[in-house]
Amino acid sequence: MNRQGGAAPLYIRISPQDNVAIVVNDGGLPAGAVFADGLALVEGVPQGHKVALADLEEGAPILRYGTVIGYARQAIPRGGWVSEARLRMPEAPLLDGLPMATRQAPPAEPLQGYTFMGYRNPDGSVGTRNILAISTTVQCVAGVVEHAVARIRQELLPLYPHVDDVVALEHAYGCGVAIDAPGAQVPIRTLRNISRNPNFGGAVLLVSLGCEKLQPARLFPDEAAALESGGQGARGLVRLQDDEHVGFQSMVDSIMESARVRLAQLDQRRRESCPASELVVGVQCGGSDAFSGITANPAVGYASDLLVRAGATVMFSEITEVRDGIAQLTARAATPEVAQALVREMDSYDQYLKRGGADRSANTSPGNKKGGLSNIVEKAMGSIVKSGSSPIVDVLAPGEKLRRKGLVYAATPASDFICGTLQLAAGMNMHVFTTGRGTPYGLAAVPVVKVATRDDLARRWHDLMDINAGGIASGRASIEDVGWELFRYILEVASGRKKTWAEQWKLHNSLALFNPAPVT
Amino acid sequence: MNRQGGAAPLYIRISPQDNVAIVVNDGGLPAGAVFADGLALVEGVPQGHKVALADLEEGAPILRYGTVIGYARQAIPRGGWVSEARLRMPEAPLLDGLPMATRQAPPAEPLQGYTFMGYRNPDGSVGTRNILAISTTVQCVAGVVEHAVARIRQELLPLYPHVDDVVALEHAYGCGVAIDAPGAQVPIRTLRNISRNPNFGGAVLLVSLGCEKLQPARLFPDEAAALESGGQGARGLVRLQDDEHVGFQSMVDSIMESARVRLAQLDQRRRESCPASELVVGVQCGGSDAFSGITANPAVGYASDLLVRAGATVMFSEITEVRDGIAQLTARAATPEVAQALVREMDSYDQYLKRGGADRSANTSPGNKKGGLSNIVEKAMGSIVKSGSSPIVDVLAPGEKLRRKGLVYAATPASDFICGTLQLAAGMNMHVFTTGRGTPYGLAAVPVVKVATRDDLARRWHDLMDINAGGIASGRASIEDVGWELFRYILEVASGRKKTWAEQWKLHNSLALFNPAPVT
Ligand SMILES: [Ca+2]
Ligand SMILES: [Ca+2]
Ligand SMILES: [Ca+2]
Ligand SMILES: [Ca+2]
Ligand SMILES: [Ca+2]
Repeated sequence: MNRQGGAAPLYIRISPQDNVAIVVNDGGLPAGAVFADGLALVEGVPQGHKVALADLEEGAPILRYGTVIGYARQAIPRGGWVSEARLRMPEAPLLDGLPMATRQAPPAEPLQGYTFMGYRNPDGSVGTRNILAISTTVQCVAGVVEHAVARIRQELLPLYPHVDDVVALEHAYGCGVAIDAPGAQVPIRTLRNISRNPNFGGAVLLVSLGCEKLQPARLFPDEAAALESGGQGARGLVRLQDDEHVGFQSMVDSIMESARVRLAQLDQRRRESCPASELVVGVQCGGSDAFSGITANPAVGYASDLLVRAGATVMFSEITEVRDGIAQLTARAATPEVAQALVREMDSYDQYLKRGGADRSANTSPGNKKGGLSNIVEKAMGSIVKSGSSPIVDVLAPGEKLRRKGLVYAATPASDFICGTLQLAAGMNMHVFTTGRGTPYGLAAVPVVKVATRDDLARRWHDLMDINAGGIASGRASIEDVGWELFRYILEVASGRKKTWAEQWKLHNSLALFNPAPVT
Repeated sequence: MNRQGGAAPLYIRISPQDNVAIVVNDGGLPAGAVFADGLALVEGVPQGHKVALADLEEGAPILRYGTVIGYARQAIPRGGWVSEARLRMPEAPLLDGLPMATRQAPPAEPLQGYTFMGYRNPDGSVGTRNILAISTTVQCVAGVVEHAVARIRQELLPLYPHVDDVVALEHAYGCGVAIDAPGAQVPIRTLRNISRNPNFGGAVLLVSLGCEKLQPARLFPDEAAALESGGQGARGLVRLQDDEHVGFQSMVDSIMESARVRLAQLDQRRRESCPASELVVGVQCGGSDAFSGITANPAVGYASDLLVRAGATVMFSEITEVRDGIAQLTARAATPEVAQALVREMDSYDQYLKRGGADRSANTSPGNKKGGLSNIVEKAMGSIVKSGSSPIVDVLAPGEKLRRKGLVYAATPASDFICGTLQLAAGMNMHVFTTGRGTPYGLAAVPVVKVATRDDLARRWHDLMDINAGGIASGRASIEDVGWELFRYILEVASGRKKTWAEQWKLHNSLALFNPAPVT
């Protein structure tokens, strides 16, 4: 990375071959500003936006991250603003003829001796929090469950001090949906696997209405009999339409009674020392700006590599944000089979978007563009960097559960809430979220570490952003510095020694299911 | 309707030409049971299920509501159980060659002198509750808004005794969606029109993040300038990413400050006497059984006719539940244009389901089938009856706002939550919901009157069901009796003199948007 200037006009160029760079200064720079290397702006350029480092002819390729992010719609002089309107987006890369598992990196040096204090589960997974989850088959039960949760929080939780929280897994699925349509397996397995998130201690408490399409036995085919009979002396399933329920309070009481048994079990658990390899970290970005791809995301990528070297699992996602960098990912696949699975997920999403009359260009938001991200190609390059440089060892279809440790591509839409929900289903126990424009995003089930891309955001949102990667732009900190800071912070939060800001304020967003099938 | 028997074996036949009837007795009836007319069961038939009134040959049409609901897959003897497995579903009716506005009913006698106490709005609509709504552009702001709502409820609401409640209009839309795809206008106009529901008093308080795709000016193009400047001395728009927000609490404080201004305005309002013609009643069913179509839904249909005669607006919906009765609806359309609009909405939904690899058969749930509803044709006949017998004067596409009084078909999916959300957007100020299996359904914005189809449900769910239509099956009450009871109850609840059970318990389900476009 080539940094020019000090407190004075400053730009960042990522790769030596790039013919554009990003203006770093707060508030942008006016026409006439001169950088340390003599480059002078011929017009004003906003912060995070691109300046031409050379005279660009009409049709010239625009290079950032060493990649063509578009073509000049008109001639742009050296020192000119390479704005969104002046850039034509390249075609989406085809899905055949890609390099398949061609980049066989030498194995990275293992990182040993890092541990955290976690909750070991019967299935071998490790929780970072000790939470009672109440699963639901259908939206119909939400009102009753919310009553029960409020009472559990007030009346029961204080009696079980080793339990961190109670969380209702509410959602809009379960009935009024085409449950046998192609694609319906996605929301169903998502709900199934979320209930098995490591932070929920491995047993299911399920509230059903009774007449819904998503019957308990369909949601949990393996545990259906146990649920009905009530495993371990507990009633694991409460069905509101059962004859025994006379009056609203009897429904709430049934949930309370089942919750009490589960809380007593969860309360017996204690944190124990676990190797860092038990971490399952889902990474994503939201509210991105041009700094996402040069500060926060590279730092997350560095931490990803540290985690993978420590034997942990890192998931990256957001299909429309990697689609334009697919060649980079298939090359990094550990095997041709993994590369094929990447192609399969890209193709499946291409089809999904096409059925709905959209394409990958639907991804970028007004905030992205205002922040200097001209199009999805540029956004993709800055997004993929979160994954670091490890080989990709596996690919999950939306809603699937993790099978392997290491760097995994978990295919999900880029929507912050759907991505987070699907990573919960995959089994993450820590979430890392980078943002440039700022979002108060949080999840009830898993700690969310928020990383700011800019000093200004970190300053204004001082009690919402956990890590500030802004120093990377000004030269106050290196990518390595912030990467290590994040790695260590993850271990602290995972151990329960620190709480993220989202946890402190109890900020959390609702689950949002990905349902490619129709509603009815 | 032909009723046979007393406390003894009892069945209900709807139309004289029907060759099946419904077993009414609690717990069903065993083989050998004999009805008053001499019909003897040759096998057990569960409650709500169909008994053959004549010997049916293989392939014979099965008639209920005077309509073919299917064909016998095998010979069924008189007194046999016409179970789901023994019935073959007919083809969906084609959408051409339908009778268009052919049934010109004589104008019904106006019903005069009925009033309720409501809140008149500047736009001429009338609210049944006086609620502060906080609109949101995007899920990202939900955590902050929830904090603000909790504080508003605790700190501000007690100071404004004439305001009933504060409601956050949270949803999963706003970013991470293909906002320019065909179909995206549905969720956008839904959110826009919900903010204008008559129960919210006519002014918008909007919380935006800042970088989301669904910008305030796109959500409210007409009010964008006023929102930004802050109408009536109030800041109508709070944008979390604005520079003025330093720290989490400053975001909550901004929302509180805007809320205070709105609350002071709302608190000035008083109920006044309004004609019943200002009622806007949305009707739907959920958790249906075979009694829905013979007790609760006919009673709702009777009340619908009373409301329409009083000049009010009644909306019915649930596309997949009327699709098989489309000929009945096009015939009842007031004009050929209205009939055409019905066809347009059916066709559009046919296409939507087809794109997703589903069809209308995806509607029926396990609870429907257990309750005796064999298929969507049978369910449709029992569902349409909620609309009574008035001419259909208008058709709304999903998310549109009402334009006319009278009986309106508001096209929505049958999903309880999506249907309720779209009827809120259309402008309903009262909701009527019939259920046979039972659901604790409720909405935060509008009172939901729940009507039970059976005595048993009304008894067990005595503090969740507002009206019991079960007496219609046993002969204790007539359809007219329950229809009038419901009509009068609606006026009481609309006036704020009574609260529904869902209101008493503060039971409410989340908004659920219909988004036929892809997520990204
Ligand atoms: Ca992203
Ligand atoms: Ca995202
Ligand atoms: Ca959190
Ligand atoms: Ca229905
Ligand atoms: Ca419904």
